[in-house]
Amino acid sequence: MVILFDEQLIPRNRAHVDIEDRGYQFGDGVYEVIRVYGGNMFCKAQHLSRLERSANEIRLNLPFTLERLDTLLEELVKQNRLREGTIYLQASRGTAPRNHSFPEQARSKVIAYTTEAPRPLETLRQGVRAITEPDLRWLRCDIKSLNLLGAVLAKQKAVDSGCQEAILHRDGQVTEGSSTNVFIVKDGRLATHPADHFILRGITRDVVIELAKELGIPVTERAFSVEELFRADEVLISSTTMEITPIISIDGRKVGSGSPGPLTRQLQTAFEKRISHSASGS
Amino acid sequence: MVILFDEQLIPRNRAHVDIEDRGYQFGDGVYEVIRVYGGNMFCKAQHLSRLERSANEIRLNLPFTLERLDTLLEELVKQNRLREGTIYLQASRGTAPRNHSFPEQARSKVIAYTTEAPRPLETLRQGVRAITEPDLRWLRCDIKSLNLLGAVLAKQKAVDSGCQEAILHRDGQVTEGSSTNVFIVKDGRLATHPADHFILRGITRDVVIELAKELGIPVTERAFSVEELFRADEVLISSTTMEITPIISIDGRKVGSGSPGPLTRQLQTAFEKRISHSASGS
Repeated sequence: MVILFDEQLIPRNRAHVDIEDRGYQFGDGVYEVIRVYGGNMFCKAQHLSRLERSANEIRLNLPFTLERLDTLLEELVKQNRLREGTIYLQASRGTAPRNHSFPEQARSKVIAYTTEAPRPLETLRQGVRAITEPDLRWLRCDIKSLNLLGAVLAKQKAVDSGCQEAILHRDGQVTEGSSTNVFIVKDGRLATHPADHFILRGITRDVVIELAKELGIPVTERAFSVEELFRADEVLISSTTMEITPIISIDGRKVGSGSPGPLTRQLQTAFEKRISHSASGS
Repeated sequence: MVILFDEQLIPRNRAHVDIEDRGYQFGDGVYEVIRVYGGNMFCKAQHLSRLERSANEIRLNLPFTLERLDTLLEELVKQNRLREGTIYLQASRGTAPRNHSFPEQARSKVIAYTTEAPRPLETLRQGVRAITEPDLRWLRCDIKSLNLLGAVLAKQKAVDSGCQEAILHRDGQVTEGSSTNVFIVKDGRLATHPADHFILRGITRDVVIELAKELGIPVTERAFSVEELFRADEVLISSTTMEITPIISIDGRKVGSGSPGPLTRQLQTAFEKRISHSASGS
């Protein structure tokens, strides 16, 4: 198993970072998780472009071009013979004596590694349970940064309650899940929070919106309340690793009939098609 | 130069962490910066107790007792022959395959190292300039966590404007500085934001409040507005490394007469006495 470390592929057990890497002391960096199906990166261009956007928003200079990064990631997948799994990719502002302001000298550090992981077929079929939690995170959730403690604590609360996701709300409005975007279905219409500073604009979220449009399902990007969430006919979450996962209960209350709904199924089917196209390299 | 790495003192250049340390991928950890004067840690007990509180709030189990940590830090200072400087101390939730929820197996990782640093005598005398910035951070700023990107970006804006600190405000109220607490003086009275979820309760902040009481200066812990900040007779910031630093201008506008005010000077003098007591080990 090799990992990408700056511009080199090195053995996993040789990959260590300095304690004064700003990723370690400030969470001063950005990241992506890219799904690999059949050896091919799914929505690769979108992920790389989002990484660049996140980096720009925190004024972090990536140490090489996206084209070079693309080549290196392809080589990583190839050398690790990854067929089904994920790539975790992170860029931090590099190593420098600890000081809040940006270092003048540090070169940003890129690391990426692969993990084998089958698709979560069971949860896709059966759906998962969620809780609601106040959204305590910062006001730039549009940046995919390493400052994830709020998300970590929310996710753990879900796990403690025997659930798989925490649906966050701020001032009465649902924002997103701790590591997913949230959609509701009401009277045949889909809604999800607009892609503003309160949420991370998921790549899978964008695919869901696209698929809904192709399927003729009306979809609106608008904030909705926690009350609307509870009254929804269907609720689904989307993410790179969870794909389109039905939510079957929230805070112990059934969503709709308590099993995955028809629009969620339609979207899942359409998503599967996208995946098989990607997996076959077409 | 040695650093504390788990329970061992090892050479600085051997101190590396795994890329899957949760401090690196989630900022999932807490920290302290402790000032050393004359070879003695200043307010050591308060720092260790705050570290424990931060750890408890994020449900991180420190790998050994505070007593043991105390002993190890004393040994670190001794071996590095540190007289004037700081200790940076951090505990992360340890290394585990990346997953938002807490790992079942990981042992939390403690690191600590020293840096020589003289007292900032010049800025203490002359004061520093500040800007105001919206407070975009999360709603648990009472936890001294590694999620510092909001503070980093605010501090950098200050530096870009030729200033040394960013004074943050949320909903019109001043919260704190990007790495300091903020006090105003108006008509002989001191005010600073209450120690709630919006600010980190600084050890130096508490000392300032104590000293003010000893000096008979009325001090109130209350939120004050950005307008009040601009109308203040004196503004000062406090932190472990900046001690009690006068703010002489904000957003290019003079504070009071534009030079450090009399109450600030009084507090600085009282603070110096505390330091000399500590430095002499009394």
